[in-house]
Amino acid sequence: MTHVESLHQLLAPLFPGLMGLQLVEVELERVVATMKVRGDLCTAGEILHGGAAMAFADTLGAVGTFVNLPQGARTTTVESSTKFIGAAPMGSTVTGECTAFHRGRTTMVWQTLIRSEAGKLCAVVTQTQLVIPG
Amino acid sequence: MTHVESLHQLLAPLFPGLMGLQLVEVELERVVATMKVRGDLCTAGEILHGGAAMAFADTLGAVGTFVNLPQGARTTTVESSTKFIGAAPMGSTVTGECTAFHRGRTTMVWQTLIRSEAGKLCAVVTQTQLVIPG
Amino acid sequence: MTHVESLHQLLAPLFPGLMGLQLVEVELERVVATMKVRGDLCTAGEILHGGAAMAFADTLGAVGTFVNLPQGARTTTVESSTKFIGAAPMGSTVTGECTAFHRGRTTMVWQTLIRSEAGKLCAVVTQTQLVIPG
Amino acid sequence: MTHVESLHQLLAPLFPGLMGLQLVEVELERVVATMKVRGDLCTAGEILHGGAAMAFADTLGAVGTFVNLPQGARTTTVESSTKFIGAAPMGSTVTGECTAFHRGRTTMVWQTLIRSEAGKLCAVVTQTQLVIPG
Repeated sequence: MTHVESLHQLLAPLFPGLMGLQLVEVELERVVATMKVRGDLCTAGEILHGGAAMAFADTLGAVGTFVNLPQGARTTTVESSTKFIGAAPMGSTVTGECTAFHRGRTTMVWQTLIRSEAGKLCAVVTQTQLVIPG
Repeated sequence: MTHVESLHQLLAPLFPGLMGLQLVEVELERVVATMKVRGDLCTAGEILHGGAAMAFADTLGAVGTFVNLPQGARTTTVESSTKFIGAAPMGSTVTGECTAFHRGRTTMVWQTLIRSEAGKLCAVVTQTQLVIPG
Repeated sequence: MTHVESLHQLLAPLFPGLMGLQLVEVELERVVATMKVRGDLCTAGEILHGGAAMAFADTLGAVGTFVNLPQGARTTTVESSTKFIGAAPMGSTVTGECTAFHRGRTTMVWQTLIRSEAGKLCAVVTQTQLVIPG
Repeated sequence: MTHVESLHQLLAPLFPGLMGLQLVEVELERVVATMKVRGDLCTAGEILHGGAAMAFADTLGAVGTFVNLPQGARTTTVESSTKFIGAAPMGSTVTGECTAFHRGRTTMVWQTLIRSEAGKLCAVVTQTQLVIPG
């Protein structure tokens, strides 16, 4: 089982599993995932719910931090800010690319760009993860 | 059918319905809702996923804006920022209370405090909604 | 010399001193300050520069954390988010009231409401401070 | 007089002038500036005050929006979020590079990376500007 598959098994029974998040790449400085914009992930107007976009990104930043943690350490999101820029229509697939601004001993800072299937920027999510020593 | 019930019917097939969000009160300056912390809303460690907390709050701010919209107008979240403060354990119920900082013609600003069943503050979500004229 | 006066001496040669920030009250859960909207704190249009509003609030949250620190510990802001709501005209005085959402061992979360002389809400600044053990 | 010089004259009597902000490049998708970390821009510990970093960046995002405005329109910051990552020592010079995520008719979204003289990332500021038609 690859690294990505084992992370998937971990996420499957959790909120990312409920939303159908699919990890595509998990590197030390970059995490990529996709998510199908199902009807039950939408808000009024048949577009991706802003909350689903934030939850999608939050997972990527947490996974990115997780794979960088020193042995025994845990992480929690302390802050997340999102700018919403464009809509993602129901039935399409969004892609999130999350990269590290900072991977320190106490905090890590990640930013996720969520793009529509057409490649248009939908949202920018920047989050700070606390590293909690084991 | 009351106001709250009709809003519930609107949300049921959408992301708030998937998460099990329950509207409790919908006033012009205040929206209250609850959500059961089901296993599939959690992250590792059997606590509410930060993304689910953000999506829960985002819905309250959008509902608050919606009931204040001039006729024909629509709204979209332009920005949301969250401070995570405490965990909400699986099986418990969180409550979100969303109040207005600003209800203007162009933007509205709402803040949601999410509290655990024990009354402990879990997260503070502050969001700006754009009012799009009809 | 009172507590507030000694903090003022500390701030005088620093950025808060340059801006003319005046501490009014410093309690463990609440810090209040005022600032005259001088011309050189403004942006175009003779209104308080958004950056000056953020710097004003950032100082209050840092002071609030400082007075709560365990002996030998230091603090740094890890994140700050601001919603701008209304303008403060040149020549008037703004008041900032900063209160604690959370005062923990690892992080503290503070929120500052900045109001115009007329009592209108100008900005809401929410910030997370890291507590760095001595 | 070049474009950059005329913007400088505009900013000189305002808050950016007080702080000593120097515009270096002003393009439609990118604004670059520098600022000397004077003692009166610092916080305790002889490092750049977080508020000065936020005010520096806020100016870049506003300038970036300004040069993209349709004739007669104005702009105001509606939201700004900052992640603080590293310190900039007194006496050094920081550089801010601000680029556009979105330049729309209603809103623009800009992100500024502030780097120390040594090239280390100090802060990431992401802001939303409202475009107010003339």
